[in-house]
Amino acid sequence: MARLVMKFGGTSVAGTERIRNAAARVKREVEAGNEVAVVVSAMAGETNRLVGFCREIAPLHDAREYDTVVASGEQVTTGLMALALHQIDVSARSWLGWQIPVRTDGTHGSARIEAIETAEIERRFGEGQVAVVAGFQGLGPDGRVTTLGRGGSDTSAVALAAALRADRCDIYTDVEGIFTADPRIVTRARKLAKITYEEMLELASLGARVLQTRSVEMAMNHRVRLQVLSSLSDAPGTLVIDEDEIMEKRVVSGITYAPDEAKITLHAVADRPGVAAVIFGSLSQANINVDMIVQSAAPDGSTTDITFTVGRTELERALKVLEGKKSDIGYSRLSPDPNVVKVSVVGVGMRSHAGVAQTMFQALAAKNINIQAISTSEIKVSVLIGADYTELAVRALHSAFGLDAA
Amino acid sequence: MARLVMKFGGTSVAGTERIRNAAARVKREVEAGNEVAVVVSAMAGETNRLVGFCREIAPLHDAREYDTVVASGEQVTTGLMALALHQIDVSARSWLGWQIPVRTDGTHGSARIEAIETAEIERRFGEGQVAVVAGFQGLGPDGRVTTLGRGGSDTSAVALAAALRADRCDIYTDVEGIFTADPRIVTRARKLAKITYEEMLELASLGARVLQTRSVEMAMNHRVRLQVLSSLSDAPGTLVIDEDEIMEKRVVSGITYAPDEAKITLHAVADRPGVAAVIFGSLSQANINVDMIVQSAAPDGSTTDITFTVGRTELERALKVLEGKKSDIGYSRLSPDPNVVKVSVVGVGMRSHAGVAQTMFQALAAKNINIQAISTSEIKVSVLIGADYTELAVRALHSAFGLDAA
Repeated sequence: MARLVMKFGGTSVAGTERIRNAAARVKREVEAGNEVAVVVSAMAGETNRLVGFCREIAPLHDAREYDTVVASGEQVTTGLMALALHQIDVSARSWLGWQIPVRTDGTHGSARIEAIETAEIERRFGEGQVAVVAGFQGLGPDGRVTTLGRGGSDTSAVALAAALRADRCDIYTDVEGIFTADPRIVTRARKLAKITYEEMLELASLGARVLQTRSVEMAMNHRVRLQVLSSLSDAPGTLVIDEDEIMEKRVVSGITYAPDEAKITLHAVADRPGVAAVIFGSLSQANINVDMIVQSAAPDGSTTDITFTVGRTELERALKVLEGKKSDIGYSRLSPDPNVVKVSVVGVGMRSHAGVAQTMFQALAAKNINIQAISTSEIKVSVLIGADYTELAVRALHSAFGLDAA
Repeated sequence: MARLVMKFGGTSVAGTERIRNAAARVKREVEAGNEVAVVVSAMAGETNRLVGFCREIAPLHDAREYDTVVASGEQVTTGLMALALHQIDVSARSWLGWQIPVRTDGTHGSARIEAIETAEIERRFGEGQVAVVAGFQGLGPDGRVTTLGRGGSDTSAVALAAALRADRCDIYTDVEGIFTADPRIVTRARKLAKITYEEMLELASLGARVLQTRSVEMAMNHRVRLQVLSSLSDAPGTLVIDEDEIMEKRVVSGITYAPDEAKITLHAVADRPGVAAVIFGSLSQANINVDMIVQSAAPDGSTTDITFTVGRTELERALKVLEGKKSDIGYSRLSPDPNVVKVSVVGVGMRSHAGVAQTMFQALAAKNINIQAISTSEIKVSVLIGADYTELAVRALHSAFGLDAA
């Protein structure tokens, strides 16, 4: 007997037929003798419909009222899931955020879970009852409905699994797991049987479509074993687990790309102390995150070019900030370039394995792909390249690190 | 300064444009110095959509889960109404049933309101804040969401008005008030400026499309002044008030018809004591309400024909019950007729005014309309006629009682 949290995303509960299908999966786990809590998202498209109503009425809306409106989507699916379980003779009841309660802080629209009171749910486990819990929502200190931000149902599921000390948290979605690269780009991408929390966090662009980043952080902090799998097939999924549990560590687990970066170059900046502090200090004050930074001195050493990347949606704002500081910084020219992409190779094995960067650079050079900037972390090497080369680079690296399926 | 409850039905909040329009009406009352609580229904069509989901999943559904699902419709409109009010600089907050709370009994699906705790809402009236309250929903003794049955938002509004000791409860809908007859049948029907609670209750078929019967009963019991008016025009509505407040009482206030009746005749029933008890006792045990009853003896006095009406949706069930009791009752033949309609003239003035029945029968005779059964109450005379004569009868009576508009 195990204790499981099963989370069904929007596509897995899109319509009554899908809900019945998900309920059948729950029944299978119950019949196997497991204690089960189900966490559900809103039906696919429903949250967008509700957010659309709010925007139509008030472009800048009160986050408390927004939360009241959008949390209704999960309320509907919890009730329907409980009904679908009753229909196949599984004892179940729905739980809304305020009923459990799932206590959050007061940051309406992107609240953080602070505590989940599971005593009553656990008591009912003892009676064989399945708890069907509304994802995405909680109860704020003001006694009102809060929501956790888009994709927040993953976080609800992981937090509930942690509170229940569940043996596993299964995230049912419309993909079969985590792949070594985006299968739409790399046809020979392979599904990973296991991946570490750290790798999952770095594989942001792969993960973002599957798991909310915050939920992975929370799973890592509370050592919740996650499984990502499809509600539409019976194929085994990908386990996201602690590094200690993975015996054979791959040097590189996956290749990922982030298409939402933009590059800015400041030309002929005076090469004097404190100038970098002015540039990055003013961006930081404007709440603009800077990622990669490259500095290249002119041959005579009098000036330098400074290149860095920001989020593409913040490019315009960053340019305004820098234009406002032109006299303080003292550059000759400012050139923005939104047509860049950051490609990364990720793997916990590279901690103990030299030569990953070199293999990466050689593979890109062999395809004549110019590297515009580089950044590294303990388990990741990232390069900035022209956006047109994205697919070529991802495929070349997937082969170079031996990830292609046989 | 007055204290008002303004209730907006489904057509009055169908879409963001309508919600904005309703919010503008609220603002007008606030700017006139009034304290306002707004009660909203779900958007038109939304409750049907949610009920449809429940039915698709489980034809016989757990009423607690059903309530959780369908109550979400009002949750959406409360949040949106609060946002619409903020947008035009009216201070407002949404209140869900469990937040106030609106305490109900535990009859999920058709719960009754037991108490509404208004202290916090009244405190915020003092700060100039509008309370936007979800209609149709409450909090059961089990700590779960209850709903009040279809049309229950009217009852929510009246109950809130009673709890708040409001000066008036305005029911905004898609008709301009209560008419002397259905304007689709009688083109010269007039809108009534005032009507008594008792008349409103009797004008069931006019009222059913406008006000839930239970809400009128509650308004009468708590002496809540109701106003029915259109959210789509500025025409004055109909006041539903205490008889004492109406100086000049009309003999007849309106003509109404109930198309949902069916007639059953038992032929040649043995005319012996106790036979009626068997017939109506067995129907009562099966929870079938009987309305009009006519007994006509055969010329030799040995047997009698018994005719009565039941709800049309219960005709099949009633026939089954009677067939099962055939030997106990001892009738020769059972003839059902669903093609009947009950036409009524209603007016508090007939208490002190003889001759209403006679005027009615003469007007129908003049049109060669055969009366199949008659029933009366203190303020109503009803006749059962062939369904084909409905419009003819309603128009004839509307003229005969001098109700036609000039």
